[in-house]
Amino acid sequence: MAIRVAVDAMGGDQAPTVIVEGAVRAAQSSKGRLQVQLCGPETVVQPVLESFGAVSGIEVVHAPEVIGMGDSPVAAVRTKPNSSIHVGLRRHKESRADAFLSAGNTGAIAAASLFVLGRLPGVFRPSITTFYPTTKGACTILDVGSNMDSRPEHLQQFAKMGSAYARIMMDIAHPRIALLSVGEEQAKGNELVRSTHELLLNDIDLNFIGNVEGRDILHQKADVIVCDGFIGNVILKFGESIMTAVPEMIQQEMDQLKAKPSEVALLKKALSRLARRFDPENYGGGGPLLGVEGEVFILHGSTTAGAVEECIKTAAQAAKANLTNAIQKALAP
Amino acid sequence: MAIRVAVDAMGGDQAPTVIVEGAVRAAQSSKGRLQVQLCGPETVVQPVLESFGAVSGIEVVHAPEVIGMGDSPVAAVRTKPNSSIHVGLRRHKESRADAFLSAGNTGAIAAASLFVLGRLPGVFRPSITTFYPTTKGACTILDVGSNMDSRPEHLQQFAKMGSAYARIMMDIAHPRIALLSVGEEQAKGNELVRSTHELLLNDIDLNFIGNVEGRDILHQKADVIVCDGFIGNVILKFGESIMTAVPEMIQQEMDQLKAKPSEVALLKKALSRLARRFDPENYGGGGPLLGVEGEVFILHGSTTAGAVEECIKTAAQAAKANLTNAIQKALAP
Repeated sequence: MAIRVAVDAMGGDQAPTVIVEGAVRAAQSSKGRLQVQLCGPETVVQPVLESFGAVSGIEVVHAPEVIGMGDSPVAAVRTKPNSSIHVGLRRHKESRADAFLSAGNTGAIAAASLFVLGRLPGVFRPSITTFYPTTKGACTILDVGSNMDSRPEHLQQFAKMGSAYARIMMDIAHPRIALLSVGEEQAKGNELVRSTHELLLNDIDLNFIGNVEGRDILHQKADVIVCDGFIGNVILKFGESIMTAVPEMIQQEMDQLKAKPSEVALLKKALSRLARRFDPENYGGGGPLLGVEGEVFILHGSTTAGAVEECIKTAAQAAKANLTNAIQKALAP
Repeated sequence: MAIRVAVDAMGGDQAPTVIVEGAVRAAQSSKGRLQVQLCGPETVVQPVLESFGAVSGIEVVHAPEVIGMGDSPVAAVRTKPNSSIHVGLRRHKESRADAFLSAGNTGAIAAASLFVLGRLPGVFRPSITTFYPTTKGACTILDVGSNMDSRPEHLQQFAKMGSAYARIMMDIAHPRIALLSVGEEQAKGNELVRSTHELLLNDIDLNFIGNVEGRDILHQKADVIVCDGFIGNVILKFGESIMTAVPEMIQQEMDQLKAKPSEVALLKKALSRLARRFDPENYGGGGPLLGVEGEVFILHGSTTAGAVEECIKTAAQAAKANLTNAIQKALAP
């Protein structure tokens, strides 16, 4: 039977076009193994879908309301119960879809997921997870923004959930888990990190390798890096700016060196290949919201059709592997 | 009269050679306007100094003890009262030097500064300040590591001190002050940031422009960015890794593109120029420890002779401009 993925057709800066295009690509390349449900206002989404011609394995599910990027998450969840996010999540809740994904308002996705799906038993706080390109591949970082003021027990759960994710979805038998801090020594860091270090050291289910520093992220000293959502989000956005600022800086230097046009062209090619390495398309298209009762994936607001396609496949893979079940087991006392 | 700068000759990975070389350069180029005091064990420092031939405007001040990079700051400050750091700070305290700088153990410099010089009246916590290269120059960030668990009043003082520093030392009449957060809106961020935002908004002495995000640092949306020391340190070290990881990644792409040796050579040249932009040598050589009763500058442990030379000049400039006095005025209620 095909795996059914509900997709928020209205989420992201270039919705619905880019989302529908990614969905069409995923449906086409799956050769019947996927069934995509595009959630959004029928009058908006249907014409876009039709512009791609006849595609099998894809349908529109009517959702009359849309939550904007600027909407307050909590208010939107209450006042727009028929948003594309709600409708998609309800499909998943009612087992009419096996997973849900959105490139929309992150706070609203997290809040609506809690409201519609609920959290897994024992979970303090769900966590937004992302992947970070490194010199050696990619590492998983969580939390990157759903929890602004965390406690040590929260970070310990993030570590358990991140470890289970890397095991199930990235095929790493014993993921190396590290805690983001300002020095390797256990005594380094703020109160939160020092208390969390203690908890992780004593957690026999984790392959905890200790603290890593800011400089270790890009060099992939760990498979999963755990931090609180405030710092994770700052780091995430700082990292995104590398691929806008550093090429600009290199270009400034090439100009100073009076590089020939052919040399500049080659550099631009290398940089655009590098930018693709920083593109979520290369590592699953989006990251999971771990800790809720279901398979929910969140994409970047500026997502591409390629990333949408990848994320649909990743969400289907998570549903097939029963990721939520694995997370729940990892959290069991 | 010459400005007298006491220098910890034993601080940093390549001490004393690199430190002495930087000091010699500063003394030579100052043409009598500077007098450098190299603090460290006479038998170690004197021969290195002599290896540079006869240099005027420089002398060795004997300090028999050395604090290592791995020493516990608090313990070292108590058990090594005659370290090169202590001796240099005491020269400053006794007005036999107008400023002090070190590339040694940051925690020990901060702790010894508090112990020997004391804090300025009303200062909650001194703050380590650094400069960050951007597409448009450099921005000032504080705190980057001296305070792991800060309160809103601490961050407000960092803002005031950073603003005074940018005004006095960087010649910016009305420095744009921003708070590092996860969104521009006042309601975004953790509890610390939300409360600090409120304080900064109501502080008429500051040109507070609101929150900035991680992605705004490299694009210089503000002149001074305020954050707590934990996140500042993570960001600082993450930023340092850009210049090791990104060139490696670009090289990987150039190899894939089968770039010619001449093209690779040009790129390497551009990257090494860019790396120089990330070199502290270009923005004062080191950053001040703001909030103590004196002019104290801290250099990176891997400092170069050029950065030491620059930092000596910067410290002399701070002494001449009476930076500490300006900071004190900025903090006055």
